[in-house]
Amino acid sequence: MSAAGSPAPRRRELTLDEYEAGVRGGKMAVLARALTLVESSLPRHQLLAEQLLTRLLPWTERAMRVGISGAPGAGKSTFIEALGLHLVQSGRRVAVLAVDPSSGVSGGSILGDKTRMTALSASPAAYIRPSPSAGTLGGVARKTRECMLVCAAAGYDVVLIETVGVGQSETMVADMTDCFLALMLPGAGDELQGIKRGLLELVDIVAVNKADGDNRLAAKLAATQYRTALESLAGRSRDQAPVVLTCSALHNQGVAEIWQVIERRQEALVERGELWQRRRRQELRWLWGQVEERLRQAVHTHPAVQAIQAALEQDVLAGRLPPEAAARRILEAFFGATVEPSRGESS
Amino acid sequence: MSAAGSPAPRRRELTLDEYEAGVRGGKMAVLARALTLVESSLPRHQLLAEQLLTRLLPWTERAMRVGISGAPGAGKSTFIEALGLHLVQSGRRVAVLAVDPSSGVSGGSILGDKTRMTALSASPAAYIRPSPSAGTLGGVARKTRECMLVCAAAGYDVVLIETVGVGQSETMVADMTDCFLALMLPGAGDELQGIKRGLLELVDIVAVNKADGDNRLAAKLAATQYRTALESLAGRSRDQAPVVLTCSALHNQGVAEIWQVIERRQEALVERGELWQRRRRQELRWLWGQVEERLRQAVHTHPAVQAIQAALEQDVLAGRLPPEAAARRILEAFFGATVEPSRGESS
Repeated sequence: MSAAGSPAPRRRELTLDEYEAGVRGGKMAVLARALTLVESSLPRHQLLAEQLLTRLLPWTERAMRVGISGAPGAGKSTFIEALGLHLVQSGRRVAVLAVDPSSGVSGGSILGDKTRMTALSASPAAYIRPSPSAGTLGGVARKTRECMLVCAAAGYDVVLIETVGVGQSETMVADMTDCFLALMLPGAGDELQGIKRGLLELVDIVAVNKADGDNRLAAKLAATQYRTALESLAGRSRDQAPVVLTCSALHNQGVAEIWQVIERRQEALVERGELWQRRRRQELRWLWGQVEERLRQAVHTHPAVQAIQAALEQDVLAGRLPPEAAARRILEAFFGATVEPSRGESS
Repeated sequence: MSAAGSPAPRRRELTLDEYEAGVRGGKMAVLARALTLVESSLPRHQLLAEQLLTRLLPWTERAMRVGISGAPGAGKSTFIEALGLHLVQSGRRVAVLAVDPSSGVSGGSILGDKTRMTALSASPAAYIRPSPSAGTLGGVARKTRECMLVCAAAGYDVVLIETVGVGQSETMVADMTDCFLALMLPGAGDELQGIKRGLLELVDIVAVNKADGDNRLAAKLAATQYRTALESLAGRSRDQAPVVLTCSALHNQGVAEIWQVIERRQEALVERGELWQRRRRQELRWLWGQVEERLRQAVHTHPAVQAIQAALEQDVLAGRLPPEAAARRILEAFFGATVEPSRGESS
């Protein structure tokens, strides 16, 4: 829009009505600006984003929300591109988002992914958005969830949310999606990669990727072992155990089958009324999770807390102070007042 | 002490020095009063308890801290009695505590257990303490952790901490102990009980109990299946997978062997310096966990929050309000002021 050589003119801010109409009308330029608005940390933008989200909420229910996790090297971007292309070719519109709290620091793995997902990003039916830069995990995840809702309201049929699977991020992505898939690698010989801490209770589908060439047999074996292990641990109700499949995203084998499983699972959730329940439960958890996340952040960034925190932690580590007593002192610093039971205590 | 028929005289309160000397000297009557002090919710008592704990800290390191979890019916009290008697008979002093947030309501399962653990409670080398009555899980677990430290300072060699395994309670017990054991039942046929949500990443030892009579074979089979499943999921480093054993607490079979595994594991942790690290990590987590727990409680009991909470949750469930916006309003009510980005917003 700006003339070559001259500085880009400051764009006029859109009104709430313009944002709403543009997103609902599927206008890419407005969608991109709405997502930037949601990701902005300016209070004025956050207020507008909140109002926009409130208006868009009624149109966010139809899209499928799918989380995809996997360790670096598991082939996430290849898999997401193959899955995205399959969806686009079958007439669906796909948005790809990411929760990657490291992206602000590392330069953004999914930014790199985006340049690799050349075929998918070339499709007019696909939209790939890099992870919001920097911020706490809770903050990044929050913005990704809000971006997911904006994409849903913009008419995308499927929103794929990628996570690098560091610490809490898998839990947060599982808590904003209808279906959570973990991408694994075939192990060498009969050794499997471990299923990571906490992943077992989050995952709906396990896909052993790179089941091609020399790896084909190892992948099948790994899938069998995961299946046996997960079914054993899931107990009597075996239909609750995660489904385990193999695929080769690189050779586009097994990807359509995985989508079929995701889709059938979603249909069953809808029929049993469980999808609605799952999403409502997620929203209540999200509400209180956000309350706690913001309180936590307020405590950690409070100057009076920061002034004493290191010394208190040292006292605890040296066995000079019980952690509960240190906790009380931190709260006293935070509230700027005495917290029970400190009355009259000299430190 | 009080004459029959006359009301019990109000006991003189002990001084901090008296509490310290009594606990350190292993005087049962003072220990019991110190634990009551720790469990008291009176601010004056809490202050004294905090000072007492600070003084006792240097003597809390020697005792082994063992968590024991299991569903109702898994035979926890029989197992704890058998294990406790084995320890007492081999010359050790044992304290038994419990995290059971339901005990205030239900009358206390471990109170019932105590009357069942007749042989163990008759031993002068054993001390069985019921769960602190009522309170939030975070509060109950906090008091149990502090009681554990008092018992350790009183010279108990082993502190066994029982949990009913409801929700968060297993995580909190795992986070205050050196070793966490889950008691399971043999399944019928080849079906296993499920390993509960989140238990996999907490557990160090799985013991399939009731491996006696007709159940013996089923228990062995269950143990093999758990072992295979847990080793598969733990991945390459199989020595990190939980150890799976069978036992019959009722017939006192396999209990000594389980203790041997616990003890060797502890020795290895000490030798590698990991025990010290594990405890210090736990204390730092405990510090911030307590900060969050108390903030959470402060929010939930705040009158201004309570006044709007139900309506906000309804708005979220009905899709009229994004959860993030509801979270902001709750924080505004809590702090009695405007929280960004609410400026100028009309609700």
